[in-house]
Amino acid sequence: MAVNATPESSPPWVLDFADGDRSMADLLGGKGANLAEMTRLGLPVPHGFIVTTAACREYLRHGSEPPGLTALVDAHLARLERDSGRRLGDPADPLLVSVRSGGRFSMPGMMETVLDVGVTDDTVPGLARRGGDRFAWDCYRRLVQMYGRTVLGVDGALFEHELAAARATLQVSHDGELDALTLRALVASFRRILQREVGEDLPQDPREQLRRAVLAVFSSWNVPRARFYRRQEGIPDDLGTAVNVVEMVYGNTGPRSGSGVCFTRDPASGELGAYGDYLPNAQGEDVVNGSRATIPLAQLAQLDPAAYTALTGHLRTLEEHYRDLCDVEFTIEDGTLWVLQTRVGKRTAAAAFRIACALVDEGLIDLDEALRRVDGHQLSRLLHPQLGDTSGHDLLATGLPASPGAGVGEVALDHETAARWAREGRDVVLVRQETSPDDLPGIVAARAVVTARGGLTSHAAVVARGMGRPCVVGAADLTIDLETRTVTTLAGTTLAEGDTVSVDGTSGRVHLGRVPVQPSAVATRLAGGATDNGTDPVSDGVLRLLAHADARRRVGVRANAETLPDALAARQYGAEGIGLFRTEHTLLGERRELVERLVLDRERDDALRQIGELARADLVQVLEVMDGLPVVVRLLDPPLHEFLPDLTALAVEVAVNDATGVEDDEAQARLAAVRRWHESNPMLGLRGVRLLAVLPELVDVQARAVAEAALDLRARGLDPRPEVMVPLVAESAELVLVRARVEAVLAAVAAERRTTLRVPVGVMVELPRAALTSGRLAAVADFFSFGTNDLTQTTWGMSRDDAETGFLRTYREQGLLASDPFSTLDVDGVGRLVSLAVREGRRTRPDLGLGACGEHGGDPDSVRFFVAAGLDYVSCSPPRVPVARLEAGRAEVLEPAAGGAWADTR
Amino acid sequence: MAVNATPESSPPWVLDFADGDRSMADLLGGKGANLAEMTRLGLPVPHGFIVTTAACREYLRHGSEPPGLTALVDAHLARLERDSGRRLGDPADPLLVSVRSGGRFSMPGMMETVLDVGVTDDTVPGLARRGGDRFAWDCYRRLVQMYGRTVLGVDGALFEHELAAARATLQVSHDGELDALTLRALVASFRRILQREVGEDLPQDPREQLRRAVLAVFSSWNVPRARFYRRQEGIPDDLGTAVNVVEMVYGNTGPRSGSGVCFTRDPASGELGAYGDYLPNAQGEDVVNGSRATIPLAQLAQLDPAAYTALTGHLRTLEEHYRDLCDVEFTIEDGTLWVLQTRVGKRTAAAAFRIACALVDEGLIDLDEALRRVDGHQLSRLLHPQLGDTSGHDLLATGLPASPGAGVGEVALDHETAARWAREGRDVVLVRQETSPDDLPGIVAARAVVTARGGLTSHAAVVARGMGRPCVVGAADLTIDLETRTVTTLAGTTLAEGDTVSVDGTSGRVHLGRVPVQPSAVATRLAGGATDNGTDPVSDGVLRLLAHADARRRVGVRANAETLPDALAARQYGAEGIGLFRTEHTLLGERRELVERLVLDRERDDALRQIGELARADLVQVLEVMDGLPVVVRLLDPPLHEFLPDLTALAVEVAVNDATGVEDDEAQARLAAVRRWHESNPMLGLRGVRLLAVLPELVDVQARAVAEAALDLRARGLDPRPEVMVPLVAESAELVLVRARVEAVLAAVAAERRTTLRVPVGVMVELPRAALTSGRLAAVADFFSFGTNDLTQTTWGMSRDDAETGFLRTYREQGLLASDPFSTLDVDGVGRLVSLAVREGRRTRPDLGLGACGEHGGDPDSVRFFVAAGLDYVSCSPPRVPVARLEAGRAEVLEPAAGGAWADTR
Repeated sequence: MAVNATPESSPPWVLDFADGDRSMADLLGGKGANLAEMTRLGLPVPHGFIVTTAACREYLRHGSEPPGLTALVDAHLARLERDSGRRLGDPADPLLVSVRSGGRFSMPGMMETVLDVGVTDDTVPGLARRGGDRFAWDCYRRLVQMYGRTVLGVDGALFEHELAAARATLQVSHDGELDALTLRALVASFRRILQREVGEDLPQDPREQLRRAVLAVFSSWNVPRARFYRRQEGIPDDLGTAVNVVEMVYGNTGPRSGSGVCFTRDPASGELGAYGDYLPNAQGEDVVNGSRATIPLAQLAQLDPAAYTALTGHLRTLEEHYRDLCDVEFTIEDGTLWVLQTRVGKRTAAAAFRIACALVDEGLIDLDEALRRVDGHQLSRLLHPQLGDTSGHDLLATGLPASPGAGVGEVALDHETAARWAREGRDVVLVRQETSPDDLPGIVAARAVVTARGGLTSHAAVVARGMGRPCVVGAADLTIDLETRTVTTLAGTTLAEGDTVSVDGTSGRVHLGRVPVQPSAVATRLAGGATDNGTDPVSDGVLRLLAHADARRRVGVRANAETLPDALAARQYGAEGIGLFRTEHTLLGERRELVERLVLDRERDDALRQIGELARADLVQVLEVMDGLPVVVRLLDPPLHEFLPDLTALAVEVAVNDATGVEDDEAQARLAAVRRWHESNPMLGLRGVRLLAVLPELVDVQARAVAEAALDLRARGLDPRPEVMVPLVAESAELVLVRARVEAVLAAVAAERRTTLRVPVGVMVELPRAALTSGRLAAVADFFSFGTNDLTQTTWGMSRDDAETGFLRTYREQGLLASDPFSTLDVDGVGRLVSLAVREGRRTRPDLGLGACGEHGGDPDSVRFFVAAGLDYVSCSPPRVPVARLEAGRAEVLEPAAGGAWADTR
Repeated sequence: MAVNATPESSPPWVLDFADGDRSMADLLGGKGANLAEMTRLGLPVPHGFIVTTAACREYLRHGSEPPGLTALVDAHLARLERDSGRRLGDPADPLLVSVRSGGRFSMPGMMETVLDVGVTDDTVPGLARRGGDRFAWDCYRRLVQMYGRTVLGVDGALFEHELAAARATLQVSHDGELDALTLRALVASFRRILQREVGEDLPQDPREQLRRAVLAVFSSWNVPRARFYRRQEGIPDDLGTAVNVVEMVYGNTGPRSGSGVCFTRDPASGELGAYGDYLPNAQGEDVVNGSRATIPLAQLAQLDPAAYTALTGHLRTLEEHYRDLCDVEFTIEDGTLWVLQTRVGKRTAAAAFRIACALVDEGLIDLDEALRRVDGHQLSRLLHPQLGDTSGHDLLATGLPASPGAGVGEVALDHETAARWAREGRDVVLVRQETSPDDLPGIVAARAVVTARGGLTSHAAVVARGMGRPCVVGAADLTIDLETRTVTTLAGTTLAEGDTVSVDGTSGRVHLGRVPVQPSAVATRLAGGATDNGTDPVSDGVLRLLAHADARRRVGVRANAETLPDALAARQYGAEGIGLFRTEHTLLGERRELVERLVLDRERDDALRQIGELARADLVQVLEVMDGLPVVVRLLDPPLHEFLPDLTALAVEVAVNDATGVEDDEAQARLAAVRRWHESNPMLGLRGVRLLAVLPELVDVQARAVAEAALDLRARGLDPRPEVMVPLVAESAELVLVRARVEAVLAAVAAERRTTLRVPVGVMVELPRAALTSGRLAAVADFFSFGTNDLTQTTWGMSRDDAETGFLRTYREQGLLASDPFSTLDVDGVGRLVSLAVREGRRTRPDLGLGACGEHGGDPDSVRFFVAAGLDYVSCSPPRVPVARLEAGRAEVLEPAAGGAWADTR
């Protein structure tokens, strides 16, 4: 059978490195595609081939090995043997191969790997000739251990227990110190474990080892932690993984060997220059799992100048070829450099902006491409606050600054505790010796992560960085005792689990207690303040790319604000108006009693007069700040009961009064009134336009406040541009009613002042029925603003508050929701209504104004949807305005596929 | 300018009777079209012409007389003068005309009329020659009065006050007894009122009278009571009214004159034979307003045999021509019969079924046409209960049985009181001297209506019949005193307002106190019971037309039921299965504590076991009754809190215990648990599939109950057909989860019994998101059932309970809602989602089962929508099953326009 032929015509099930390239990541996985690309670039990549994702999907579909796959693998193996000059199972000089997972999207540590495939009783002597007895038996030990755990499903702790016993016997601290005899005994002992646990031994046929290792990697696609990770990262479950079968090279064959992981630039700061960790006489796993202390890459220049020069040359080649930050794994075997893996490297948000701009300056990419390389999530992370003044808070430890930002919380020592406490609403800092993929739920739950061991490329560091969790790794001063549930520092301080610490992921410092938190430099700079030293390449990058986004975007960005400080912040952050001024702000706090008086009919006219004056004062402030820009004033929206006393509390008060003989007619009367207005589902009750219909004086008083505020400012020479928005409209007649009242008041106020006043009146589209009848609504509305919070609530029939405490956790745990529809707009349901309303509203009124003012207005993915849907602007809380600006710009330079698909099929 | 030409090419603004026919009702109004039709039939209709609805719409659009209209009216007037042989304003023999409203749909008494147009100072003498001085001055008096009120907007009470003073002076009891001199003085007095009130006199140019009367009738289209009536009846606001300008003929010119109103059959019972009221020497208004006692039509045969013979001949002509019950107004002037108006007559529900079948038997129509002539609202009315045994309840009065059915409530003496009490939830009987169009809100609000004066064609009778309100008119024994707010009977009983009476609209009797109520004969007959005398033409008609509907309909009718009595009733009423078996029924009453134990973790397993056993017992009963028919079992749906104690009550109990030193740890613990599960909006919270995800044992126990119940019955040789429905699904993953659990349990139970069991699993589509993602849902659901109650709730963001107490009343009063979306399906919003889900669900799965199980399943209009939308079945409460059957059949024989429009544009 010819190489590359598959039982079905396409796609191929097996492909050599030399026959692929990086455009084939869907089929080859990211790792395989990049190995193929490097092979084509002439980099020293070990020989190998890829069993493709197509073969994996076939396997997962049928649950058994696809017929013909073994023959294909054998054919490619023959070529590998020819190229490498070694044969699998050759007693004289055996070929050993690694069998590694590698899907379309990186899932660090989530799936399985089997190394050293090809060691058998027969090949040990030949292997010993390559690297010594100890090396040969260590390879055998590793193979039995990994094969046992991964292929046969034996509990890994059984092996670890034997290893620990051996270390104790020899009084050594790590496995690298175990001698050949001990390793040989461990191989025998591990093989007995296999026999005992599953009644099988390691196959002595190397091809059988290979065959079963490949299938085991396929199967690991569906282990729970991998599924959990995919849900977290939004990776589809049906992609499958490729398997890379690669000639083993060894960094642990002596002092002229070693392994390392490096980046073409600093992935934390974005600074230029090769950057990484190196571990002499070690395999790559030893670097990644953080079990031994690495040395900085720069020291390799002294240890092995030739290898260092070759490596830095390769790094330059890769960065120029990929036109981006790359990360690279390499091994040096007896002075020969092998590049084992590369990919476009993960980076911190700060590095993303700095690198993107640096690549523009270096002429490798243009500004559009730079804009594609950053995103709103990253910007949002940069806008997160940082630890403030730490004086008075003992420095507990300093580790590596693995993921920037600040996190404060109670120490939790395992991921179950961290997740449980987080569910209880507590802020948690996960503190671990080192992390494994099993710790993922704890990292998700924590405000920050600290590990005592590991480097910047350790599991904890990579995962935390990807999620924007502040993270400090390698804080070696910390000793964690899971028996007593304490953490002890070198200085002798002992923390109990539950004590509070503050983590600075930017500096790598961990402090005792609750350190106050400060805004980020980027946020300060965006707000127009100077940075500490005046030169901050990250803030520079953010401002530059924001400016480019502003130049590109067609969609406006407004802010949701109703106070003077928020309005000022909104302008500083670049808001082009207010998309949502909530009039209920006027009636918060002690002022609630004004509404109560209105409802209970107590000095009603005076209450109305006061409401009007307060509203007018609030409006004047915000309209003045937003001089010349639109300010959308939403008429009173919340359920009436939010302004009334709590029924249960009041009922208890009255009952206790009764029981204890206290007379309180006032409380009795209030209770009666609250009962009369009580609703079993206030979200679906008397609120928004309904409350305005029942208490139309509230329309009048608010409309008058708008008119008077605007005319006051106009008299002072300003250009106020208020708009009035009617909430919770389900039927156009509601809008007609309120609009008529608003316009009558506006006309009356204008007439009083012998002038005219034109104020657009629009509708907040936040009920499915409004969207479904948008063609009619548009006939009587000047604009629509999508209130996607409430629209999500009714489209899903789900109250956010109740859902969070009630069942959303269960849903997340069971993977029932791909994402939280309250955070990221549900395109299929809510988004469909938005698109429909845009289309049908514009059909009725081509000049209809269209905006979004729910919290989704500041969510990066949702912003891109709103752009694709054709809105004129989005509106969000002031600190998210830069995020919305960036994403609105990115929407214009990203491939139109996503937006186009939304726009076409909805 | 030529007659019939209008400034715009079409439609015409003015048309002669001779040039129209009854197909032109949109343009000519119903009254005008029928006058034209009768003119073509050769019936003795007075000469006249019609100013069309097109002219009215033009007038309403611009708010002023359309240019050119006066010239057109003049041209047609010239022809009228030629045909009638009299001229307007001719001092010798003046033509007088009536100017009457007449829209597309009958709105009895809602709009204005001006009679006797053409009387001036100059024409009084000529008029006196026709009918005497008294007649002439009475015409003048009427014209000034109507013109003043209608055209000039003068308060009618001012004229009534003068009339009352004149009657008092002359010591006579009604206006017909006023002499010529007095009437002449009244004309002068009325004209002074005009001058005083509006500074205008009655124009002495008859053409100016005519011109302004026409415009005043146009304007009356928009008086509040007309708008209110249109909202009640669902008549569009933009149709406008036509105006009939007709030569006056007089029934009050002496003993050989008179006026009457009659029907071709009895509109109450449907019995064959001319039937009506006649009033000698009177105008038509005197008959209709009930101010004088009429005589039965049959007595006309003695008074004026020739006129009677002519009239009955005309009635036969009309019924054969219209192939339906007609009502007719006529006047006899000095022995000459004039037919003034006809239309297809309103009738009781009972008469509708009887007449439709009689016309089939007479060969005038076929069964399809008969089915078109009845509707579900009428059938529903016939299924309403009737007054039961009245012994022990004094008979207060007997009047005319104007609208059948029974109503019990507190006496209210004006419409404001009736409406106010009804809003407070009280049952009200409106008792009035006579009713006017202003009383409409009171009639709407009342359980029954009683008037002391008036005939079967009086306002109260017509309106109440149209609405299905039981009504007794002409109960002359009652004296109503609005001063003391009492009603006194001839026998001397005095009732205070607020006392309870029972009204039998079928027999015309009013009883003191609360009479028990019995089911209707039709309902009894439908349920398979015999009627009292064995021959009941109404029940016969209902059964016959239901049978025809069953033969015609393609859509199945199921019932919502979960108890044995309901299931039995459902089968008797013809249900073809159960569309909604609510499992929560099992957990009502004392059994609620089972759920509480589940939640509070108290003897949990035992609680689950009991829930399962109870559910199984309920299911066995219903599946047995429905042997061979589908039974859709909905898994537990209500919010969890409905099974837990009330938070406020429990909080009060605990607080009072605390305050009084009582120890109750049990209550404390329950309060803590209830607080933990408390939700601010339970409708949007932990319910339906969400509760099932959180407490999956509830899925298992219910699935097991279904499986065991079905297999128990199968073991007894029956053919149980349960289906399982999952409520409140928003996302297909929810259904996948529950479906897997259900199917695992079904398979396990089947395996235990060494058999197999196939149970379809479907989804209740009751959230907008389910409808919007129905294409995906259908991939994992065997059927959809639309839960339109909840779908309405979320689409509108409106809880029915909260809305009813909170704002729906305001909405109705202000006309914000054309109809209650919880009663009649909101086609534009909710219906659009239903149509979308049908289309996209079937696209995914062509054999997808489709049903509706909300309360709309028994609403006539909604049933026709569901048929048009393409559902397989509707399901409703058992008593509404016949209504759904009838409407499902009618949907097939009605013009496809309505359904087709829905299906196409959604």
